[in-house]
Amino acid sequence: MMKRYVVVVAGGKGLRMGGSIPKQFVPVKGRPVLMRTLEAFRRACPDMELIVVLPADQQAYWQQLCADYGFTLPHRIATGGETRFHSVRNGLALIPGEEGVVGVHDGVRPFVSAAVIGRCYAEAEAGKAVVPVLPVVETVRRLSADGASETVPRDSYRLVQTPQVFPVALLKRAYRQPFTPLFTDDASVVEALGEQVMLVEGNRENIKLTTPFDLQVAEVLAADR
Amino acid sequence: MMKRYVVVVAGGKGLRMGGSIPKQFVPVKGRPVLMRTLEAFRRACPDMELIVVLPADQQAYWQQLCADYGFTLPHRIATGGETRFHSVRNGLALIPGEEGVVGVHDGVRPFVSAAVIGRCYAEAEAGKAVVPVLPVVETVRRLSADGASETVPRDSYRLVQTPQVFPVALLKRAYRQPFTPLFTDDASVVEALGEQVMLVEGNRENIKLTTPFDLQVAEVLAADR
Repeated sequence: MMKRYVVVVAGGKGLRMGGSIPKQFVPVKGRPVLMRTLEAFRRACPDMELIVVLPADQQAYWQQLCADYGFTLPHRIATGGETRFHSVRNGLALIPGEEGVVGVHDGVRPFVSAAVIGRCYAEAEAGKAVVPVLPVVETVRRLSADGASETVPRDSYRLVQTPQVFPVALLKRAYRQPFTPLFTDDASVVEALGEQVMLVEGNRENIKLTTPFDLQVAEVLAADR
Repeated sequence: MMKRYVVVVAGGKGLRMGGSIPKQFVPVKGRPVLMRTLEAFRRACPDMELIVVLPADQQAYWQQLCADYGFTLPHRIATGGETRFHSVRNGLALIPGEEGVVGVHDGVRPFVSAAVIGRCYAEAEAGKAVVPVLPVVETVRRLSADGASETVPRDSYRLVQTPQVFPVALLKRAYRQPFTPLFTDDASVVEALGEQVMLVEGNRENIKLTTPFDLQVAEVLAADR
């Protein structure tokens, strides 16, 4: 098997703001989200090498959390950048050479399934750029410039999750491009090279925890495990 | 205030199949989903007139449920048709004349907020065709015919919920059109007349309960009330 890496991006802000704790550190059923995310990857693949990207001012807090919770999974830490693009680039810099495959994953998606991780990495090892997606359940409308909107066929759309997984050489080459705000996710950075992206089936529970409602849902999902 | 109606469509199948109970009848925190849905509308507007559309073979079961749970909210029952379009049309047939406004709502969306109901009906009373929508949180990809796909700007898309609310005269006129499979929701039926649709903000909790996972989330949401 090829060397497998995951760059887990935990960019949620908040520690300095006197506001709420960033979602990646919130305990869900007694265990911080980011630990659950890292454990999901290690569970899916015991050889997975873990890289966490954290804002500079959250790294001491994270180390303290790891000590408090007895979290011992080996992982390296990269420092978050100005945008997600810069954060991922900093994470990639910790990978030596061009061998193997690398996934990029949101730190606040702890419920990615082992099946999805396995599927994405297997296709990436075959040379593909891989993105897990879900069908759209609701009716979809597209807005037009004049303020009107129209229903579009939802079967033609997919909602994109992470991990997005790539051959290391390809993703490194993609991230050598200059940043543009058109880069919305890793797939879009790779596509800017003219590469095709392969879609595989994601898992519905792999939600991005961003709102208080999401955290309530997370409690339910964590209870199932 | 104008006369306000809601046609609650509860089309979920299952009773005859020997399979699981249709979602509209599943108890969430001890109370069937459909009762919760009807109560949400009555809570938002005490004068709301309630019409429930149910498949013929579920109506006796529903009456029994109402007796068992002591559910006494007055409501009339229309019989479900071959498709959602036909079901809505049957529900509309119970509204006398052309006065007032009518919403069409999914029976398995019990968590619509009073604010969203109020907003939709107020705009419909001003003559609009109104649809509650949510922004898209995830990255969106559009599939093309050749099997490729591309990221599209998610800011240009909205996910559609219910209730979709209209002047009674307008919706009745729309539903006199012959059925086509292009009618994906009530808005699309009205738009086939050449009418514009107005989008208002929905509420995130207003999920459509369709999977076992959704029912777990529903337990959490119901506990909050």
